[in-house]
Amino acid sequence: MSRGLFITFEGIDGCGKSTQARRLERRLEEEGNASLLLREPGGTPISEDIRKVLLNPDNSSMAPENEALLLAASRSQLLKEVIIPHLEKGTIILCDRYIDSTLAYQGFGRDLPQEWLRQINRLAFELAIPDRTFLFDLPVDVALSRLGDRQRDRIEATGVNFLEKVRNGFLTLAEQESDRYIILDGQNQIEELEKEISSQVLRIIS
Amino acid sequence: MSRGLFITFEGIDGCGKSTQARRLERRLEEEGNASLLLREPGGTPISEDIRKVLLNPDNSSMAPENEALLLAASRSQLLKEVIIPHLEKGTIILCDRYIDSTLAYQGFGRDLPQEWLRQINRLAFELAIPDRTFLFDLPVDVALSRLGDRQRDRIEATGVNFLEKVRNGFLTLAEQESDRYIILDGQNQIEELEKEISSQVLRIIS
Repeated sequence: MSRGLFITFEGIDGCGKSTQARRLERRLEEEGNASLLLREPGGTPISEDIRKVLLNPDNSSMAPENEALLLAASRSQLLKEVIIPHLEKGTIILCDRYIDSTLAYQGFGRDLPQEWLRQINRLAFELAIPDRTFLFDLPVDVALSRLGDRQRDRIEATGVNFLEKVRNGFLTLAEQESDRYIILDGQNQIEELEKEISSQVLRIIS
Repeated sequence: MSRGLFITFEGIDGCGKSTQARRLERRLEEEGNASLLLREPGGTPISEDIRKVLLNPDNSSMAPENEALLLAASRSQLLKEVIIPHLEKGTIILCDRYIDSTLAYQGFGRDLPQEWLRQINRLAFELAIPDRTFLFDLPVDVALSRLGDRQRDRIEATGVNFLEKVRNGFLTLAEQESDRYIILDGQNQIEELEKEISSQVLRIIS
């Protein structure tokens, strides 16, 4: 049995990646392919525990290094407990955020060294680099306008300038890893994006 | 104002380090020295949240890499929020476990690479290496015999062989870093150990 396919969905909040990940999951199911949709941080009981620490509003004083290490910790558990065993069984894994979110947010956004982020995420680089990464690119103000008031307030509080750095970070990563990255225009129609993504993926697995 | 002093207490559970850390704290207070006793993992609200994830018995399937990253995450927060600001104010910090516990338990005990453990704990090596580390060395069976039944069961479940590797790991580290390590015989009388430790520390600060 051959190794499954590992597909990740990346971009800033409001870019439409989660919607497209769910639609691809449904499409694959209709076509009779075993797939598994995951989100980061999370996806195992331990990783969900870590997610709570990361998202706890009382923890606003979290050091950037701590945040990066917690994300790497959650990811290492997801890799060993879920991603690797399922890839070995031939499953198609769809992951809503993965290592590139760390490189973009904690690296380009929070200015932590890329080399250190790669070191703490050693397992991801050694065990499971995505086969394809769909990047949903769009202007920060368009992404923000799509979010509900409450979510927008929380994200805008981190700063529009910060999100600009993250957006440009993703584009830089896509250039560096052009073999696996597919950049999509996040302002395109949902149905159009869905068609493009599923045709790309079905071509690989057919 | 000069930088404070950073003292750590290391060894396997049951070695007596926590008792001695508390006694040194009391002695320093009697002598009129500002000190702060910390324990790892923990010491900040975020680090205590992480401690709960680490010690949750439901999380027994935790990957060794995840465990090491969570410990590093908790430590990075403790460093930035507590250790560094207090050292800069001139406080004497007493820490019950620190970076050497990671190198001994996750490195020598769980066979994770020392180099990777040093990378993920970059902040500790860059910002705060202890000035003195007291290692309480004693045979594993003696340490276990001192623990209550419940605690002994939990620790013995990890394996006596594992604890032997940890004990020898600490001794190797003490040899490599002989400038800051002071090896104590954990089987000595409590009062004798207390006298030796306080005389060493009072000599440094006088």
